[in-house]
This record gives sequence, structure tokens and C-alpha cells, in this order.
Amino acid sequence: MPDTLNAAIRRRYACRDFVAGRALAPEQLDLLLEAGRLAPSAFGLEPWRFIVVTDAARRAAVARACLDQPAARTAAALIVVVALVAALDPASDYVRARLAAEARGQDAAPIHAAYRAFHRADAIAGWAVGQCNFAAAHILLQAAHMGLGSCPVGGFDEPALAAAVDLPPGEVPALVIALGECRHAAPERIRKSPD
Amino acid sequence: MPDTLNAAIRRRYACRDFVAGRALAPEQLDLLLEAGRLAPSAFGLEPWRFIVVTDAARRAAVARACLDQPAARTAAALIVVVALVAALDPASDYVRARLAAEARGQDAAPIHAAYRAFHRADAIAGWAVGQCNFAAAHILLQAAHMGLGSCPVGGFDEPALAAAVDLPPGEVPALVIALGECRHAAPERIRKSPD
Repeated sequence: MPDTLNAAIRRRYACRDFVAGRALAPEQLDLLLEAGRLAPSAFGLEPWRFIVVTDAARRAAVARACLDQPAARTAAALIVVVALVAALDPASDYVRARLAAEARGQDAAPIHAAYRAFHRADAIAGWAVGQCNFAAAHILLQAAHMGLGSCPVGGFDEPALAAAVDLPPGEVPALVIALGECRHAAPERIRKSPD
Repeated sequence: MPDTLNAAIRRRYACRDFVAGRALAPEQLDLLLEAGRLAPSAFGLEPWRFIVVTDAARRAAVARACLDQPAARTAAALIVVVALVAALDPASDYVRARLAAEARGQDAAPIHAAYRAFHRADAIAGWAVGQCNFAAAHILLQAAHMGLGSCPVGGFDEPALAAAVDLPPGEVPALVIALGECRHAAPERIRKSPD
């Protein structure tokens, strides 16, 4: 029975401990990646890619890079959300292709000029990492929607994580999403009051 | 009939032009804010607040700060997602309260130490703005779920926008979400291929 959005929002929480030996099905991973792929991004740049880590040795390497946090250590699968920082250079083929697509057959020069001005003005690596949170939020809700536990892991040794998933120069790990069957029920939710 | 998460993800797109004179109901705005409020954040800091702008004069001021982009100009309501940058100082009462809540009755000192190390290491304003994208993604999906059009507007004159919504020093506008009934059907979706 498919869940509503609101049920997924309410059900999602940071699971710190997953049941061992419950691998995700390939179709589950496909749905998670598809949710991330459809996320919005500024200028339509989609400045991300997703690396799925299911192999035990590689999961262990990623977990070590995540400072051995239990969520990363016990996850059945990890999705590393990677920010494509070097590709965001305004003169790159990547930017040219994305902005041409965004222009939908119209002249891409105005949006390219706006992007060039923005790129000068901002610290692009941190910005790209922040953009990745749109995709991460979609993936986390998709996991909840499917009844999977998840935990966003933002604390990691960046060079170690980059090495564990073989990132080329110019790509920066933005977030690790730990996934699996959660060992515990959701704790009481902590949030600021609506006021 | 409530929508599934996947339907909301597929339905959401950046609407650039809204139908004039279709105000949002207070209950719709409440649901949008609640979706944002339940978003995840690093260290459980929820480093955001949401300012709803429905008054015509104020909408016009926000739209001007958004460089008169049509989505902002025609929206029935705007939600300004604000990053609470100054509050993120590790010694602030805000951080103390959030981390105490996150520790759930256990000693908050270890998480506070980790946060202090993180805060030194990172450009906190840009990071806080990026965290706001978790909340923004929830709000955008909630809008789609309710059949509302939406557009994330990230291009704005920051001081002008801060002035338009009376931000105190130490708060930074992260994103404007334009909302309303979209005048046009969704265009064909543009995305990188899954590969």
C-alpha cells in the first residue's frame, strides 16, 4: 500500500543502528536513485552524482571514513552523494550542456551570463554541497516511503571518504546516506515548536 | 485523494508563472510549514526559520529583491527560508538547547565538542544555507502533494531581501519558495540520464 507524502515525512527519522544481513533489492536502490535524480537544483545544474556502496569491504571503508559512526557501520547499503564541483566551472562542457537543456531550445546566453556572475560571487564548493541536500532529502523520503530506515551522515573525513569511493579530483563528498532495516522503533521526535 | 510520495516527486516542477488572485488557505500554509519543520538537519540544529509573505505590498518587495523574476512576481504566497547563522555559534543558547534536545537526556558534551570542531572547520553561513535545502525540498514536495505550483528562487539581492522581510543581523536568506496555482502545465522534464 503506497504511503502518502505526509506519512513518509512523519515516518522518516535518523536510524542509528540497522539489522545486519538485510541487503536492499536492486529495485529498491533504483527507486532511491530515481527520487534523487528528480530533485530540483539551481540553474537546473543537478550538480551531483550518487555512488551506491553495497560490497562489504567498501562499506567498511566508507564507515571508517565516517568516523565509525554506528549508522554507517551497520547500514546494508550506503549512498554517497557527491558534489560535482569542478564541473561547475562556467566554461565547462558540463555547464554548457545543462544550461542549454535548461534553456529549452531558447538562447542559453542570458542564463549562462547570470550563472557566470553567480559563480564568481559564491564559494562554489560549499554551495554545490548544499545543493546536494535537495537530492538527499528526496532519497531520505523515498526510503521512508518504502519502509526503509535511513540516516544522513554528514560527519566524515573528506579525503578518506573520497579515497574510499575513488572520487576524481574536482568531486567532493557531500553526504553519506546510510540505509537498511532499522533495529529500533522511531524515538520520540525532537523539533522546535512551530512558533 | 492523497498523493503518494512518488506522485509528488514526479509532479513537482519549477512553475514560473502563477494564476493571479488565487490566495493560499491558511491550512495550506500550515501544512507547507509543517513539512519544512519536520526536515532533517545536521546535529539536529534545524538552522532555519520560515517567513510567510502573503501581503501584496510585501510580496512586491520580495519579488523586487528576487530581481523581478516572474515566479516571485506572480506567486500568491512566498515562503522565505532563512538560515539562522549567528545562532549557530557553538556558545549560543540556541546551540546549547538544540544539542541538549538531540542528546535525549544523555550527556550533550560529546556532541557539543564534535559540533565545536565542525564549526571551526567550516564556512558556517554557506553551510547553514545549504542545510535549509532539506527543509525547502520538503516544502516543495508538500506543495506538489497538495496540487500547488511552486518554484525555488535562489537568485536574489541578499541585502534587499533581508530588508524586505526585516531580518535581524545574523540571519541570512537561503531560498525563496514561490507558491500558487500554476498557469501552465508541466513542461517536459529535463534531467541527466540515470547513467
